[in-house]
Amino acid sequence: MALRARALYDFTSENPGEISVKENELLTLCSEEVVDGWLEGTNSRGETGLFPASYVEITSTDPPQHGNGTTVGPEYHYYSRDSSNESTPTHSGGYQGPLQQQRHSFQTSQGSDDDWDDDWDDGTVEEHGGTPEKLGNVQSGYTNTSTSASRRGSGQQSKGTGTVGKNLNRFSTFVKSGGEAFVLGEASGLVRDGDKIVVVMGQSGPQWEDNPYPFTCLIDDPTKQTKFKGIKSFMSYGLTPSHTQNLVSRRYKHFDWLYARLVEKFPVISVPHLPEKQATGRFEEDFITKRRKGLIWWMNHMTSHPVLSKCDVFQHFLTCSSNDEKAWKQGKRKAEKDDLVGANFFLTISPPALPLDLQEVESKVDGFKSFTKKMDENLIQVNVTINEFARKQITGFKKEYQRVGQAFRLLSQAFEFDQQVYSATLNKAMAHTGEVYETIGDYFAEQPRQDLEPISDLLAIYQGHLANFPDIIHVQKGALTKAKESQKHGEEKDGSSAGGINDRCNIISCATLAEIQHFHYIRVRDFKAQMQHFLQQQITFFQKITGKLEEALDMYDQA
Amino acid sequence: MALRARALYDFTSENPGEISVKENELLTLCSEEVVDGWLEGTNSRGETGLFPASYVEITSTDPPQHGNGTTVGPEYHYYSRDSSNESTPTHSGGYQGPLQQQRHSFQTSQGSDDDWDDDWDDGTVEEHGGTPEKLGNVQSGYTNTSTSASRRGSGQQSKGTGTVGKNLNRFSTFVKSGGEAFVLGEASGLVRDGDKIVVVMGQSGPQWEDNPYPFTCLIDDPTKQTKFKGIKSFMSYGLTPSHTQNLVSRRYKHFDWLYARLVEKFPVISVPHLPEKQATGRFEEDFITKRRKGLIWWMNHMTSHPVLSKCDVFQHFLTCSSNDEKAWKQGKRKAEKDDLVGANFFLTISPPALPLDLQEVESKVDGFKSFTKKMDENLIQVNVTINEFARKQITGFKKEYQRVGQAFRLLSQAFEFDQQVYSATLNKAMAHTGEVYETIGDYFAEQPRQDLEPISDLLAIYQGHLANFPDIIHVQKGALTKAKESQKHGEEKDGSSAGGINDRCNIISCATLAEIQHFHYIRVRDFKAQMQHFLQQQITFFQKITGKLEEALDMYDQA
Repeated sequence: MALRARALYDFTSENPGEISVKENELLTLCSEEVVDGWLEGTNSRGETGLFPASYVEITSTDPPQHGNGTTVGPEYHYYSRDSSNESTPTHSGGYQGPLQQQRHSFQTSQGSDDDWDDDWDDGTVEEHGGTPEKLGNVQSGYTNTSTSASRRGSGQQSKGTGTVGKNLNRFSTFVKSGGEAFVLGEASGLVRDGDKIVVVMGQSGPQWEDNPYPFTCLIDDPTKQTKFKGIKSFMSYGLTPSHTQNLVSRRYKHFDWLYARLVEKFPVISVPHLPEKQATGRFEEDFITKRRKGLIWWMNHMTSHPVLSKCDVFQHFLTCSSNDEKAWKQGKRKAEKDDLVGANFFLTISPPALPLDLQEVESKVDGFKSFTKKMDENLIQVNVTINEFARKQITGFKKEYQRVGQAFRLLSQAFEFDQQVYSATLNKAMAHTGEVYETIGDYFAEQPRQDLEPISDLLAIYQGHLANFPDIIHVQKGALTKAKESQKHGEEKDGSSAGGINDRCNIISCATLAEIQHFHYIRVRDFKAQMQHFLQQQITFFQKITGKLEEALDMYDQA
Repeated sequence: MALRARALYDFTSENPGEISVKENELLTLCSEEVVDGWLEGTNSRGETGLFPASYVEITSTDPPQHGNGTTVGPEYHYYSRDSSNESTPTHSGGYQGPLQQQRHSFQTSQGSDDDWDDDWDDGTVEEHGGTPEKLGNVQSGYTNTSTSASRRGSGQQSKGTGTVGKNLNRFSTFVKSGGEAFVLGEASGLVRDGDKIVVVMGQSGPQWEDNPYPFTCLIDDPTKQTKFKGIKSFMSYGLTPSHTQNLVSRRYKHFDWLYARLVEKFPVISVPHLPEKQATGRFEEDFITKRRKGLIWWMNHMTSHPVLSKCDVFQHFLTCSSNDEKAWKQGKRKAEKDDLVGANFFLTISPPALPLDLQEVESKVDGFKSFTKKMDENLIQVNVTINEFARKQITGFKKEYQRVGQAFRLLSQAFEFDQQVYSATLNKAMAHTGEVYETIGDYFAEQPRQDLEPISDLLAIYQGHLANFPDIIHVQKGALTKAKESQKHGEEKDGSSAGGINDRCNIISCATLAEIQHFHYIRVRDFKAQMQHFLQQQITFFQKITGKLEEALDMYDQA
């Protein structure tokens, strides 16, 4: 029996060896093995190549009418780490994190993957590297490794499944995120009151309860630090959260570690992507400025999020004194041992009293899916336009205005050949007009940094958010499918089981809609603010030009 | 003996068959025959081809060391019309007018050359065509033909020349303009008080006495007229001079006729060039608007000129009723019979009491020559820049702003997929911002017509003036050479002859310097006014943009 898969989303190949797939297209898999998040298979056009495993759903049987004789080789390499779980094969191959297989994602890493400052300041270097279990194994019940996602398959899938079956594709986000395990009632954990995440019913539907103690966080210009007597140097960012007013010092790798924790913990929350790493030239001013700007955007999205802003690991990151290595280490280990991640995260969600109408949820989520698709497409186009416009201003516009300036200078130079007294002030005024146009050329070249670049930065962070949503939607869709399945079969041993699935599907739906709502909320806020900033900058720019021209014009009054 | 010539100015070949020459370069002529203002010869680089006759001075002997064996063929075709003058060969070949052989000149023509509306309204068609003498011969003492310059060689060169010889190059502007004849004392005519042209001594040297009755002249939008029951149609311009306030109607060919008269009459005055003719599409709106603008510039320069504005033929043109055909015909014939043209024009000049220091004059004229050269070079470059800048605004700038507008629209379109109530005003504001940027694109495209085009028009009229000056300078230089020659020889039969040459050289110098002074005066006036206009337009333009942006920004206040 050939292994088949159905594409959940469109994927367009971008590199040699990849193939494009269309939503709902049926694919024949060469192998079920996922390597670094990719599967190999043949699409309906007969092209064979790689595509992201998370973009497809493996289907069980080979419909005879589509049979093409492809057989699956015996080359599966399951990497099963959890012996209690051997009955449910988990495929914990090469992937790094549950939400990191999407095309747009930044490569995140643990300390040991940090190719540009690859040492931990807290002295726990030994816990990384080739022996991920070394430290993890001393902790009871946890394979506390840095390959976070491998834990997802563990412990939460050991319970019975009733008649609602599990997905055969153990790599679907729904499975990996823990969504399936939760819906099937396999999640369990101790949820304290402080862990509770409340979804309330707002005017536009479910929304995260506001953070009662909102705060912001300043990020200073980074400073260059050295250690090992100057052999190693790195950049350090000073953070000052408004609720503590205590400056803490963090390196990029700390942000990176935090990001990995958050992605692991929150299956249906869009964790903003960190600004890109850059291997070379990391102390160059442009790069440092750009990364700082990126981190400010990132921090702004973090502190704006009602759930992310409150969570323990983020608070630890923001508030733990830079000098207290012991406290830092403790908090770090606590975060890495956190039980309420993935499937268990859903246990912490406290939904509104009335369950949602699942049909309405489906329609809302579908609407949002169309919205994100359109927004993503348009953002790409807008970004191209914005960047091209900036480039034109820096090159072409500048050149044109400078040439006009030079032309006026040329005229005044010719006029200076004539030594008539009454011509002198005109000559001077024309030379000045020439200078003014050269200055206007410079203004055009400098302007994009003030107005177009911030828009481009904004688009980048939203492109990141949009890239997160297919996985989030996928989890919700998976839950909904399970709920429908259970209702359809109507064959539960006890009614409470179907009710349980419905309840849990409701929780996932509430969380998803709350996250969608939050997305819209910050989108309107951010784009409004950025458009205002842009227009204000443009107005100032044109006023500056007008001022210069008025200055030039005044000189002719004496001519 | 091979005929040799020395280049007086640089000439750069622009068409096949032409050769470039450098100032002072020696040339061997293939023939002394001038065809349409061109001579054929070989330059020092051995290239053989055509160059403008007015750019060279024919030298008498062939220096043996430069002899290249070129012999002159027997193909001269002298066209000697005046039998009283046969001792002095005049070469009245194909040229049209004394100042019209320069490269930059517009082709002027009599009525019969007017290829687009080729009939005279005053019924004197028969005087043109193949029989130029037909009408002229009935007038006593004048070959009153439409080929004006042919008259220059006649009647004025019959007197004895003493020891100061005549130029061998009978085509030099100095000879053709009548400058030589005047300096050698060969001009004579009746100068009434009303014909007197006064040069006064101003702060910066000799200058034309101001017109005591300055006026201006409005040019209305042209109207399309028909005649011969609609078979022929033409454009008619309504002129309203401020000193009569009577509207007269004139066609382009009338302007053309006037121009030819003025060029003929004033050897050292820069008659502004008429806007170019255009054979096809002459009723197309763009062309008509452009020509009207050109005529307005032309008229402005005419009425600004103390000598041109007062002269009879111009006054006749401006004031003769369009309905009085008889008066028009009379004035036309009077102008064509005018005795005080060319050499005799100088008789009308009344110089300041004290003669000029000729050395100082020479240095001033040389200075002006450098000035015009530099100004001409720079005008060309400025014109290229201005036109390129206009083109960029109409195409590139417009496109860039419109693209940005479309980008903002795209974003708002994506946002409209989301039906959140609180997003609606933002969506509307962004769509409006998109519109505003598209409008700004239109502004950029429309702007050059307001500010760059007028500058380009100004440059064109000054390019015309500058093209006139080599000939004017040439006349003055010729007079100066004659004066030096006569002083050097010191061998006059009576001292008064040398004194007479000096006096007449002084008159030409006064007129030349007065014209140069006038040029500077209107140059400063025109460029000051045009730069002010340009900057005011630019300020208005950028303020308009700012206003639009403020309008866009306001919409976000409600978002």
